[in-house]
Amino acid sequence: MLTTSTVFRAARTTRALQRSFSSSIVARVRRAVVYNANGNPAENLRVLSVPNTLDPPPPSTLNIRFLLSPINPSDINVIEGVYPAKPLPRNPSNLSQTDSNDSAERVFIGGNEGLAEVMEVGEGVQGLKTGDWVVMVKQQAGTWCSDTNVGEQDVVRIPKVDGRLPSEVDAATMTVNPPTAYNMLRDFVQLKPGDWVVQNGANSAVGQAVIQIAAHRELKTLNLVRDRDDFAALEARLTSLGATRVLPYSLLDPTVDKARAKETRTSLQSLFAGSPPRLALNCVSGAPTTHMSSLLGSNAVLVSYGAMSKQPLSLPTSLFIFKDLTSKGFWQSRWYKTHSREERESLMQELVTLIVNGKLREPENEVFTIGADQDDESSTHALREKIQKIQGGRYGKKLLIKFDVKR
Amino acid sequence: MLTTSTVFRAARTTRALQRSFSSSIVARVRRAVVYNANGNPAENLRVLSVPNTLDPPPPSTLNIRFLLSPINPSDINVIEGVYPAKPLPRNPSNLSQTDSNDSAERVFIGGNEGLAEVMEVGEGVQGLKTGDWVVMVKQQAGTWCSDTNVGEQDVVRIPKVDGRLPSEVDAATMTVNPPTAYNMLRDFVQLKPGDWVVQNGANSAVGQAVIQIAAHRELKTLNLVRDRDDFAALEARLTSLGATRVLPYSLLDPTVDKARAKETRTSLQSLFAGSPPRLALNCVSGAPTTHMSSLLGSNAVLVSYGAMSKQPLSLPTSLFIFKDLTSKGFWQSRWYKTHSREERESLMQELVTLIVNGKLREPENEVFTIGADQDDESSTHALREKIQKIQGGRYGKKLLIKFDVKR
Repeated sequence: MLTTSTVFRAARTTRALQRSFSSSIVARVRRAVVYNANGNPAENLRVLSVPNTLDPPPPSTLNIRFLLSPINPSDINVIEGVYPAKPLPRNPSNLSQTDSNDSAERVFIGGNEGLAEVMEVGEGVQGLKTGDWVVMVKQQAGTWCSDTNVGEQDVVRIPKVDGRLPSEVDAATMTVNPPTAYNMLRDFVQLKPGDWVVQNGANSAVGQAVIQIAAHRELKTLNLVRDRDDFAALEARLTSLGATRVLPYSLLDPTVDKARAKETRTSLQSLFAGSPPRLALNCVSGAPTTHMSSLLGSNAVLVSYGAMSKQPLSLPTSLFIFKDLTSKGFWQSRWYKTHSREERESLMQELVTLIVNGKLREPENEVFTIGADQDDESSTHALREKIQKIQGGRYGKKLLIKFDVKR
Repeated sequence: MLTTSTVFRAARTTRALQRSFSSSIVARVRRAVVYNANGNPAENLRVLSVPNTLDPPPPSTLNIRFLLSPINPSDINVIEGVYPAKPLPRNPSNLSQTDSNDSAERVFIGGNEGLAEVMEVGEGVQGLKTGDWVVMVKQQAGTWCSDTNVGEQDVVRIPKVDGRLPSEVDAATMTVNPPTAYNMLRDFVQLKPGDWVVQNGANSAVGQAVIQIAAHRELKTLNLVRDRDDFAALEARLTSLGATRVLPYSLLDPTVDKARAKETRTSLQSLFAGSPPRLALNCVSGAPTTHMSSLLGSNAVLVSYGAMSKQPLSLPTSLFIFKDLTSKGFWQSRWYKTHSREERESLMQELVTLIVNGKLREPENEVFTIGADQDDESSTHALREKIQKIQGGRYGKKLLIKFDVKR
């Protein structure tokens, strides 16, 4: 039903859109990828330019400019409104925070992760200076923008190790996936060289980091992946990263082939040689995880960090009672909230050390540049097309946003 | 197909049965409830008498006579062969342990729990004397017998508290259900008076112990039970034990009535007043447990000790990732294996203290007596009839076996 207020709101929304697009012709001093309300990001994301520059940073804050900001699956979920964390609303005319509840008078900047360079530090800021590279530890800060002001506690510095920095792509993708892998391998089970770890979704960004960090620690990994035509190519790629074994889910699925599933389990048990995995990492849930759990030894921990199957985690109760299984979850956002600045810096130090020593390769990636001379309307069009392509989770490359801003 | 060996085996089995029944006419010095092979206990359990008395106890062992031995659901599962613990085989002619693999030449004595009186102590036994009451901590020792020899480490003494012993029924049912309740309320979450605990299968023996121990600790309990016609009577009974709230599963089941399930959750959240349960106890699994998990607060622990629905434990992965849920299992048998004699004795002390102070009532029960003058065949018949009645888990009373032996 169209009411007066609906029509009025629609007109206002149109004006707001026109204003945002037309402003891009006048001046593109700061830019961001924003949305007005939750929905499909291929339909509601847009590039917005605002004419104002940043004010000098207030005490204990920094002005930073983003160099590269990834588009992660969880960013899509945030925009869809199905993720339990939300960004703060911004005023669309200057990108400053706002209290407005009117969807025409507020926007949300997308993005949770990103690499930024410190441009200017406010009074009293300790341990950070102009030119430093920083990444966000504050959640949902809105990293898909050219530049912004942040609290000094919201970021952590990327340290140099032996005088070396990681690549921009490595640094931009360093706060979510590698630490998820690193912490899951460290915080739940005491593992020693030679121990087995099993994971599903092994081709995910976290999965690939798990393979590499585990290999560096001389842990063996059994890596379960979706069945696919090019399995051999994927197996070769994961093996080159350090995977000990790679198997498609179907080989463990008794509903596909009961005898073969039993054979697979028997052959894996002999591979484990009496020491089956005590750590399982899950980003899939559903049936593949039920089958994976049957491989675990006594007193194992199953750590879930995703549920790509969109199915629940379903396990035989007997595993908990008689095999002393523990099922836990891991969320890197919570880790940042519950750990000190020193612990965060130490984590970054560990990860940069792995990266600059070639133990953790940058993900396959593609940079989506929003050109300085490209207006908001055409940038929006190009961005939405790209977003549509990566939806479904089989794009295979990490997409990163870069703002090419005239300065 | 009948082969020579099948026929031969059948003949031998028949002879063995005849021998066991006929022996009961000659002498009934020791008796036991035994089975030859896994199967339906209402068909394969039998009462067996043997003519020999026990030898004097070897060093570090005791001769004990059983006063009362419960029939627990897990005993039925052991006989069915679906439980991950098995008793050792015995020689059917004298009930001593045997290495025979021939099912006609070995029997298993049923029963895992029971109260016994020490008759005679072997050399070097410390802290136990003739006349003491003991309960089994060794698993599957075969408590459904008149008397037996056990290692001193296989039992723990029932202490007197303020000069008082618990009742025979209390003592006979003290090693599995009350400690399961006691330990689950103690070992997983630090709870303080006023905190909520939620459990399903609240009418089970463990569930009733949870209600009473929680009430004693001033914890509030939300008790979920199967839907039934006499719900009000059950609610009244559990409330009289100390239950704070009792609800049938259907009230939380959105597939039964979506709006009502939502209302129930809303009204429970207001009952919890900002402090939802951080401990959930599960002996059901399946859908009722999925619904129960939606009531939990952040950082909660779901402890499973049974799966009466015979369905898997199925939970949304988001509970693990975003609400930091931990899912664990509890098995009192493992607790005994992994705890010292001092810890076991201290546990018994705590439980006897609760019992003699009226904080933990004996379960509703019925004693099945195997009369001294009743021959094995008629005892077997009566026992199988009774077993048939308790199968299905709705008998409502704990059945205990008593051997009335002429001495």
